[in-house]
Amino acid sequence: MNLILLDERDGVGSPHVTVSDGRAAHLLNVLHVTPGREVRVGLLDGPLGMGRVLSAADGRVTMQCVFDADIPPRPRVDVLLALPRPKVMQRLWAQLAALGVGRIILTNAERVERHYFDTHVLDEACYRPLLVEGLQQARDTRLPAVSIHRQLKVLVEDHLDTLFSAGLRLAAHPGGTTSAGSMVREHPDQRVLIAIGPEGGWNAFELALLEAHDFRQISFGPRALRVDTACTALLAIVHAAIEEQQKPPRDA
Amino acid sequence: MNLILLDERDGVGSPHVTVSDGRAAHLLNVLHVTPGREVRVGLLDGPLGMGRVLSAADGRVTMQCVFDADIPPRPRVDVLLALPRPKVMQRLWAQLAALGVGRIILTNAERVERHYFDTHVLDEACYRPLLVEGLQQARDTRLPAVSIHRQLKVLVEDHLDTLFSAGLRLAAHPGGTTSAGSMVREHPDQRVLIAIGPEGGWNAFELALLEAHDFRQISFGPRALRVDTACTALLAIVHAAIEEQQKPPRDA
Repeated sequence: MNLILLDERDGVGSPHVTVSDGRAAHLLNVLHVTPGREVRVGLLDGPLGMGRVLSAADGRVTMQCVFDADIPPRPRVDVLLALPRPKVMQRLWAQLAALGVGRIILTNAERVERHYFDTHVLDEACYRPLLVEGLQQARDTRLPAVSIHRQLKVLVEDHLDTLFSAGLRLAAHPGGTTSAGSMVREHPDQRVLIAIGPEGGWNAFELALLEAHDFRQISFGPRALRVDTACTALLAIVHAAIEEQQKPPRDA
Repeated sequence: MNLILLDERDGVGSPHVTVSDGRAAHLLNVLHVTPGREVRVGLLDGPLGMGRVLSAADGRVTMQCVFDADIPPRPRVDVLLALPRPKVMQRLWAQLAALGVGRIILTNAERVERHYFDTHVLDEACYRPLLVEGLQQARDTRLPAVSIHRQLKVLVEDHLDTLFSAGLRLAAHPGGTTSAGSMVREHPDQRVLIAIGPEGGWNAFELALLEAHDFRQISFGPRALRVDTACTALLAIVHAAIEEQQKPPRDA
């Protein structure tokens, strides 16, 4: 936990904020804070800041918080993910939030088993704390938006232009020849949506549907990766390419 | 499992190979093979090939295997990793093998807890099947070499030049300013060694030691990632940069 993330339930409008849950346990038992210590704080979907500990005892920590003027930008990458099995999805929530995504769009596909949608892992009460955990790891405040879709065709034809109105759409597929990084560098300053298929890949109909809606196929090498490893790998490559655009080229 | 990996214990010298363990269970219960079906096989540290199923019943599968003439190249990336806690390390073995590493060098550091070295996760009997699992996922045959070092200083000063004799040495650290990808692109055709510190980072002495032994600091953005996520992210970025070197540049 590299950041204590606060939200409206913590009464951040008042001059002092008291936490008494897992965040307090982390402050007390891992950071061993005492009065006067400063810790990084953030306001969910708001600015980062610093909290000065006023009191720390009996499972409760009270801080005086000062927030930055600016709110961190929303990550420039979104993901469209064929729903993996619940155990994998449970692990992915915090990872996706830590790597940085603006929006998580979960969908059905032929090779997704129907019962995957019945899991509690898709309940907001389950995934929201996991997303917050990922933000606290990565020192971000911007909670990813989440939507869950039971029909890929309806999603792509009727809702996707609203969810992802403009930008570069990429679909990871073993047949792709262009790398994600070079595709992103060729399209500077655009939001990026990465579609990641199920274990076994998209079927031919699904690929044609994605192509008809402006997705370009990308590959990232000959190795077949598990869905969670592939998500992390692709998000890392796309973020790295975006950051390289934003820096002036370095002399060799 | 995208490949059935065989080794000398399977009697691959004989014309027919019979498996009866988890690989047989995968062939029978997941792929539902019947006689005549062809499946991808590989020989540990040897070539890829195809196996034609001769019989499949009672928990045993017998195949006739034909192997390629060439052996896949060893991945061009090695990792030097401050030993994470056992639960994380257990998860990492298969991930590292799937992403592709030639060598895994595990080390102590100030912020590594000593008892991490006492775990069975560092026994070859534990990690070898996990590495093989990762290779079978990624369709590779090259088993990473593993070495475990209790003193970073002794490792770096006395053993590293043997373990990693020539190439580009990178150390991931929050202070780094150059991206891993651009560093790799500036040093084409070299092996790459990525050093990844403990949660909390290398200390000042360790960083100076690494710098004195030709490690260059790299960063990959402002987000603090868990060690396992950081490993996957960095390996993906470095592999992508290596693959881009090997392809002619694409017209925009």
